[in-house]
Amino acid sequence: MTTLSEFSVSTCSGTAKKIYSAGGKTDWINITGEVQKAVASSGVREGVCVVFVPHTTAAVTVNENADPNVPRDINFALNMVSPERIEFAHSEGNSAAHVKTTLVGPSITLIVTGGKLLLGTWQGIWFNEYDGPRTRKVYVRVLGE
Amino acid sequence: MTTLSEFSVSTCSGTAKKIYSAGGKTDWINITGEVQKAVASSGVREGVCVVFVPHTTAAVTVNENADPNVPRDINFALNMVSPERIEFAHSEGNSAAHVKTTLVGPSITLIVTGGKLLLGTWQGIWFNEYDGPRTRKVYVRVLGE
Amino acid sequence: MTTLSEFSVSTCSGTAKKIYSAGGKTDWINITGEVQKAVASSGVREGVCVVFVPHTTAAVTVNENADPNVPRDINFALNMVSPERIEFAHSEGNSAAHVKTTLVGPSITLIVTGGKLLLGTWQGIWFNEYDGPRTRKVYVRVLGE
Repeated sequence: MTTLSEFSVSTCSGTAKKIYSAGGKTDWINITGEVQKAVASSGVREGVCVVFVPHTTAAVTVNENADPNVPRDINFALNMVSPERIEFAHSEGNSAAHVKTTLVGPSITLIVTGGKLLLGTWQGIWFNEYDGPRTRKVYVRVLGE
Repeated sequence: MTTLSEFSVSTCSGTAKKIYSAGGKTDWINITGEVQKAVASSGVREGVCVVFVPHTTAAVTVNENADPNVPRDINFALNMVSPERIEFAHSEGNSAAHVKTTLVGPSITLIVTGGKLLLGTWQGIWFNEYDGPRTRKVYVRVLGE
Repeated sequence: MTTLSEFSVSTCSGTAKKIYSAGGKTDWINITGEVQKAVASSGVREGVCVVFVPHTTAAVTVNENADPNVPRDINFALNMVSPERIEFAHSEGNSAAHVKTTLVGPSITLIVTGGKLLLGTWQGIWFNEYDGPRTRKVYVRVLGE
């Protein structure tokens, strides 16, 4: 049994959603609810859930859901780990964002049990924007029984 | 056909397990045997195996199983890539650990074939502790035929 | 329904394939076509596809397929994020490569729909060599309906 869902996220728009901005280009959006909804509507009770971002300057990660300073701190650190570099050759000027996508990853596989995502107490699913503002897409594949 | 298993790991306890300690807080635990056991008891012959860590300051990776200096070196490098930073705002003081979790990832998907994990000669599965000592949980979802 | 495929890649050989060389040791090989072929021959229409690298100094990532400067820039940045370090103890001298494998990851899970990989316009699948030249293996597990 399997389903495929998709939803959109609008990044770097509004103050409520903006976690930490490197020149207004980066953002973390909590997508736990949307993914949970895709799992619920799939009818799968026991299986897996793949969250996939079809972009090359964005990513998906699982990290703390409680204190907003955590995503802010991680986003800040990612900007330190992958700064703009004078040696970059890509003419669009967003290579630092592409680097972050490869470090964090555009895909994460979660476990579904009892018809719900299995997540730890503090875990949430975060869409990472590294080159916004943009309207982005997220795909959710649920597979199981 | 699918099963879900779980087991616990105790980190930063005892000298045998301690690979490399940043203030006694980080640790690498080889969990290949436990995951292999979950695969064997699932009855799945051909499929996939998702190893998932329900924590936000720990992760899972696949890397060398042979020379203990390799996990030690990687752990050392992760401390360099994600140091404590004066700009961090999260009051628990463990943001560097959260950063490592997003860089390495709390989930990895492996291949099962012939009823066993498909791993290269030098590969082992490692639980990464970034903010120990703690008792941690690992979930293993096996899915296939 | 599930299939397992494998193919080989020869890294750091020939100028056409060499994206960016750190002492001639690193390389990015576009494997999108090979993975797509494995999906097509699996007969799976709706499901998932796990690309797995059975090595500890190589990895797999999804990033831009269009401008060759993007993989070059990312590879350059990875060499900055994970340099050789005087503190490394592993006697083979390739710890920086092992670090990159843990940061980027030896496994990625993709979505299959309509019998094809679901990839964004700019996305391609890249084999990352960090310690070549070598002949490497890639496994592709396709699972679904």
